[in-house]
Amino acid sequence: MKPSLPKGTRDFLPDAATKRQYLFGVIASVFRKYGFAPIETPAMENMTTLTGKYGEEGDRLLFRVLNNGDFLSGADTDALSRQDSAALAPSIAKRGMRYDLTVPFARFVVMNQNDLPFPFKRYQIQPVWRADRPQKGRYQEFYQCDVDVVGSKSLLYETELVQIYDEVFTALGLPVVIRLNHRQILTGIAEVCRIPEHLTSMTTAIDKWDKIGESGVRAEMQKRGIPENGIDQIISILAEGSLDKLSETLHESIPAINGIKDIEQVLQYLGRTSLHNRFEFDIRLARGLDYYTGCIFEVAAVDADMGSLGGGGRYDDLTAVFGMPGTPGVGISFGAERIFDVMESQKLFPSSLKSAPQILFIALSEEALMFAFIAATEVRKQGISADIYPEPSKVQKQMRYANQLGVSFVAIVGDDELHTQTVMLKNMETGDQKNMTVAELVKSLEQRA
Amino acid sequence: MKPSLPKGTRDFLPDAATKRQYLFGVIASVFRKYGFAPIETPAMENMTTLTGKYGEEGDRLLFRVLNNGDFLSGADTDALSRQDSAALAPSIAKRGMRYDLTVPFARFVVMNQNDLPFPFKRYQIQPVWRADRPQKGRYQEFYQCDVDVVGSKSLLYETELVQIYDEVFTALGLPVVIRLNHRQILTGIAEVCRIPEHLTSMTTAIDKWDKIGESGVRAEMQKRGIPENGIDQIISILAEGSLDKLSETLHESIPAINGIKDIEQVLQYLGRTSLHNRFEFDIRLARGLDYYTGCIFEVAAVDADMGSLGGGGRYDDLTAVFGMPGTPGVGISFGAERIFDVMESQKLFPSSLKSAPQILFIALSEEALMFAFIAATEVRKQGISADIYPEPSKVQKQMRYANQLGVSFVAIVGDDELHTQTVMLKNMETGDQKNMTVAELVKSLEQRA
Repeated sequence: MKPSLPKGTRDFLPDAATKRQYLFGVIASVFRKYGFAPIETPAMENMTTLTGKYGEEGDRLLFRVLNNGDFLSGADTDALSRQDSAALAPSIAKRGMRYDLTVPFARFVVMNQNDLPFPFKRYQIQPVWRADRPQKGRYQEFYQCDVDVVGSKSLLYETELVQIYDEVFTALGLPVVIRLNHRQILTGIAEVCRIPEHLTSMTTAIDKWDKIGESGVRAEMQKRGIPENGIDQIISILAEGSLDKLSETLHESIPAINGIKDIEQVLQYLGRTSLHNRFEFDIRLARGLDYYTGCIFEVAAVDADMGSLGGGGRYDDLTAVFGMPGTPGVGISFGAERIFDVMESQKLFPSSLKSAPQILFIALSEEALMFAFIAATEVRKQGISADIYPEPSKVQKQMRYANQLGVSFVAIVGDDELHTQTVMLKNMETGDQKNMTVAELVKSLEQRA
Repeated sequence: MKPSLPKGTRDFLPDAATKRQYLFGVIASVFRKYGFAPIETPAMENMTTLTGKYGEEGDRLLFRVLNNGDFLSGADTDALSRQDSAALAPSIAKRGMRYDLTVPFARFVVMNQNDLPFPFKRYQIQPVWRADRPQKGRYQEFYQCDVDVVGSKSLLYETELVQIYDEVFTALGLPVVIRLNHRQILTGIAEVCRIPEHLTSMTTAIDKWDKIGESGVRAEMQKRGIPENGIDQIISILAEGSLDKLSETLHESIPAINGIKDIEQVLQYLGRTSLHNRFEFDIRLARGLDYYTGCIFEVAAVDADMGSLGGGGRYDDLTAVFGMPGTPGVGISFGAERIFDVMESQKLFPSSLKSAPQILFIALSEEALMFAFIAATEVRKQGISADIYPEPSKVQKQMRYANQLGVSFVAIVGDDELHTQTVMLKNMETGDQKNMTVAELVKSLEQRA
């Protein structure tokens, strides 16, 4: 039998796994520095937790876990006789796989509310599953990487999240543009243009600006039934850009005034610190989800035409859907899979990042192998990763293994070395060789580390 | 709607998640030091990969993932009309959840054989899912933590795995006993006692020695049909214990002689280094699985009556089941969930291990909040984790939050501090307070880190 993987899923070999751990590690360490703590939720959730939270399309993409044992004994016989898969599913699959980290987080907050400090700052880096059609860069199993704070409306948190974006991408060596807007300003535009009932259509259209440009957005709004003079006015307001100008244009809208005040407060905080990346207010940033109610964020690579590398925003209530109203919050996520792809293609992972051990010991006789083992033990005692080729094979074969692994150094133990109780250290990059004692070897490797 | 979790699954709050990350981190860093590299496989595998690998009972405990869309259209109509859940399942659920890390690893090696160096040393720390009846300490979703090398029969690897057990448990501060035995010696006992056809029964019985004692093992062997004089002889050989004695008693059995030679080679390697934990050859160690063919290992806490904290052994062929014969290997696993429980109950996690930031800034006015923000930014710049209470609330409320978080320090900014551009640093353990500048604060926190 020739084994295969389910479509849309992947194995990670040592190099990729090491790079992913590095990426998640960098992100997590910045989260922790800003006082966010890790949580983890199970991969399986009850379907009652998941269903109805992601829209019709989302529900269709949920992976359901078949009940164990004689699942047909509890099946909806009506649905079964009608051969209705959708109607049958709930009766034979009560659990499903996590579709994102937001709904599980909401459930988590409700279930653990008595044990959490509020404001509660959490991060979560875990895989999610979606039955999406697999295509380049899109998988059925992939990691999400979310950071949120719930239980406060303070704009200090919006500020911290911008700082987090800035610090993470600086640490990764990936220059980005961080963009900021506010849902209430968009609401204000709809009000002032006298099309408040078209707010969602307007937002959805504006959200596509980067992809389809002004004429595309205009066409989209027409298609969605926004009157022509409304469209003209919207486009002209979007062209203005600056907060000052918007304050004038939108001065009749209370939501817009509040939104602008929020943005100004965040800018005031950020003005007292310094960012490494481009940061801008962008009135054309919309974010698709209706869910957001305040500041919204998006981050994109400066160099790569890769679209968004992350986004987020403020929401009014995370947990009302689970019967616990009054939990406002703000959060952002990192598009970890895409960030990984960009870093790979731009060769941004540190060259020191290796899945291979630092050094491979090569022995040319059984006796030399015992000496190599003792030497490797000494090296490892100093916290340096080391490996030993397990047999006294031909030197060519062992060197081939060293190259396959990608080790930085090889320590050869032949008859001469065994006699003098030394090793021949070979630098695999430069090809330099040098004879030395084990103590000298340890020192030399420590200096490099 | 009141949300709940599927039975046998768990949320991990910040403290537990932080401790788990620490535990996995310690284990992984020792793995890497010994030249093992991380890999990851997907949570979902094809059912054809999983089925038939874990025995009948295992197959029953597999979680199956319902096919997406109109799954009934591909259903086995025969099975459906017979209301036969077991027969129907394969036609409506082609994927399943990983049940362990061994079978996915075997699939991985076969599928990626051209891209791997052999011997291939890998570790894998990922969750697995089993539809076991949940009970104290047993979950339906839990982590496994495996380290294996495949493609070599060298006993150097057995040696390294003993060293790894020793180093991990030393690093965790959890004293253990590491026990070693060899399957071929057990085979030799069955041969010498002239009950070779009862080898599996004998092994299964011996495996329970720790739980049921000599009389229990004797009864078990009787029940399984081993003749009385055979049992007497087995029990008397097991009582001998020492390798020298066994060499004599079993000298007619070629498997036993080979097994003893293997053990002696491992002991010879280990004799050239030093272990921190108790290490012993134990002829009564059997390990349940038929899978093992050479050295077998088990590790248990010295103090706690917690049973095995890990085990493993050598196998002849990992990948034959997937059509790639000739991949011998050896591996061990860490019972991470149980190790976690032991460490919790014995309070072995470092007290410095906190999910909380080091310091919380508390501001008593809006202006003070801005100063606190600037100060926190300075502190974070030095890599120190810091948080700010997001509003100038009453000091009692803010201190309550500091206590809930469990921060080590609080920096208070009131009117006086704002005036002198300082903070009042409070050590939450000792209660000591001291007024200082932000630069002094940074220095003081850095010294502690």
